[in-house]
Amino acid sequence: MRRGPGDRVWDHGEPVLRAPQPTAPIGVFDSGVGGLTVLHELLVGLPQEDFLYVGDSARFPYGDRSAPQLRSFARQIADILLERGVKLIVVACNSATSSAIDDLPLHVAELGYAVDVLGVVGPESNLAVAQTRNGRIGVLATSATIASGAYERAVLAADPLVRLTSVACPQLAQISQTGAPITEQDVELARGYCAPLRAAGVDTVILGCTHYPFVGALLQRLLGPQVALVTSGTAIVRRVGHALALRDLATPRTSEGRYSFLCTGDASAFAEIGSRFLQLPMGTVDHVELTQEAIA
Amino acid sequence: MRRGPGDRVWDHGEPVLRAPQPTAPIGVFDSGVGGLTVLHELLVGLPQEDFLYVGDSARFPYGDRSAPQLRSFARQIADILLERGVKLIVVACNSATSSAIDDLPLHVAELGYAVDVLGVVGPESNLAVAQTRNGRIGVLATSATIASGAYERAVLAADPLVRLTSVACPQLAQISQTGAPITEQDVELARGYCAPLRAAGVDTVILGCTHYPFVGALLQRLLGPQVALVTSGTAIVRRVGHALALRDLATPRTSEGRYSFLCTGDASAFAEIGSRFLQLPMGTVDHVELTQEAIA
Repeated sequence: MRRGPGDRVWDHGEPVLRAPQPTAPIGVFDSGVGGLTVLHELLVGLPQEDFLYVGDSARFPYGDRSAPQLRSFARQIADILLERGVKLIVVACNSATSSAIDDLPLHVAELGYAVDVLGVVGPESNLAVAQTRNGRIGVLATSATIASGAYERAVLAADPLVRLTSVACPQLAQISQTGAPITEQDVELARGYCAPLRAAGVDTVILGCTHYPFVGALLQRLLGPQVALVTSGTAIVRRVGHALALRDLATPRTSEGRYSFLCTGDASAFAEIGSRFLQLPMGTVDHVELTQEAIA
Repeated sequence: MRRGPGDRVWDHGEPVLRAPQPTAPIGVFDSGVGGLTVLHELLVGLPQEDFLYVGDSARFPYGDRSAPQLRSFARQIADILLERGVKLIVVACNSATSSAIDDLPLHVAELGYAVDVLGVVGPESNLAVAQTRNGRIGVLATSATIASGAYERAVLAADPLVRLTSVACPQLAQISQTGAPITEQDVELARGYCAPLRAAGVDTVILGCTHYPFVGALLQRLLGPQVALVTSGTAIVRRVGHALALRDLATPRTSEGRYSFLCTGDASAFAEIGSRFLQLPMGTVDHVELTQEAIA
């Protein structure tokens, strides 16, 4: 069995028991349908790969959960994905990434899986640092994500001389995700969130919530065409590509892959709302039961 | 009055009587709501400019019209825009551009207006030629646009050594513009249209219809991430920017501009369908009456 050099990280001197296969799907999870904007980018950017998505809609939203809760939730969802043999795990949720991305690889390794875990915050921050010309970056995110300081840490780790302007946007995720037309009130709300970024003279803005691609064009108009927007999806696509190449885990398939969905809440509601987020056919959505202990 | 060097083209040795002002709106027209995807890109790429859009919904669709009819329609819509003092005219319709783009500037000049006319076919073709690495370009468009040979002429004029693969897509404009989820049947239809492009090994594909941005992600997944897609909107934004700069006609405004709509058919239906195409607030839509002669 041919394996990449990265196994060393997890094998603790013992043979790796459950190494993934190139033909296995990539696991992606989120608190609900928001992460489907990330899956959308993965399906477009890595069309040959198979994907298995878990939406934890029974416990949506994650925004108000504590960090220990989110770490526990992430472990439970990872267990579901690992049982189904995924070759890589993408945490397609800014809240879960902010709280659980350091803990989850340890959990996966403890279970004996040589499976990498990628979150959205690091790749987005690195891409923004790589793109900025004037060293002034902005981030728009939910109040919880901004309060976690995760983007601030990631941007400063990538480049300590970059200045980050963070704006909490408590109402931005609601705009447009329902499919309703964008109103003038929505424009004024978004204008308010953009004002500190314009004042700071940023040339690059991180969209730090999976729902924000829906208002990407509106934000671009308000910020001006000279400002580059970085989304979770575009940033993670490259990172997943790198990881699969390094581990020799890219699929040998040359036609489009398959994708399917599990959700912890109502499957038909997930399918209906999800299709607007995915912008591709939804296919199968199955319910997956969380243990009573997990729900409590 | 400060004017650019390009006036010379239209003044025939006489003083220009009706020269546009930088504060005037840019006129954009189409057979209906399709051109709103082009206006969308203009509103995002040139946020400070004002726009006046005319949708000729009373005579939609343009696809089955003869070239003389389309030239006549374009002249009538240009008259409406010129009466309202536009500083530039964008033909945001592939059918009208294919048939009328050579005639319309003559009409505008005959009326004594120093107003440039830009179509979508030339900018798209030039951008595709500039982007391709392997000299193999594809174009997806309606049967009428492909039959007109307009993209073939424009691509070959830009680079005679580029090979263009043209695919008529009679049903592609219907997918997704209704807001309904993309189905597996839609995927198979799109896969069929992409097959000749994959076989030809193109690395750049022109979306030669204003409705196709709705299926851009689906086409990208089917064609693969290494293929660059060129839309009417992205190509025309740069061209309009160049034209305004050359003519010293860029607006002095620093905040976002206004935009409004005229349509020759039912205004409320236009507003309702249009908001899905524009993906920004629609604002005012007024009905404009065509002369009886024009409708006949």
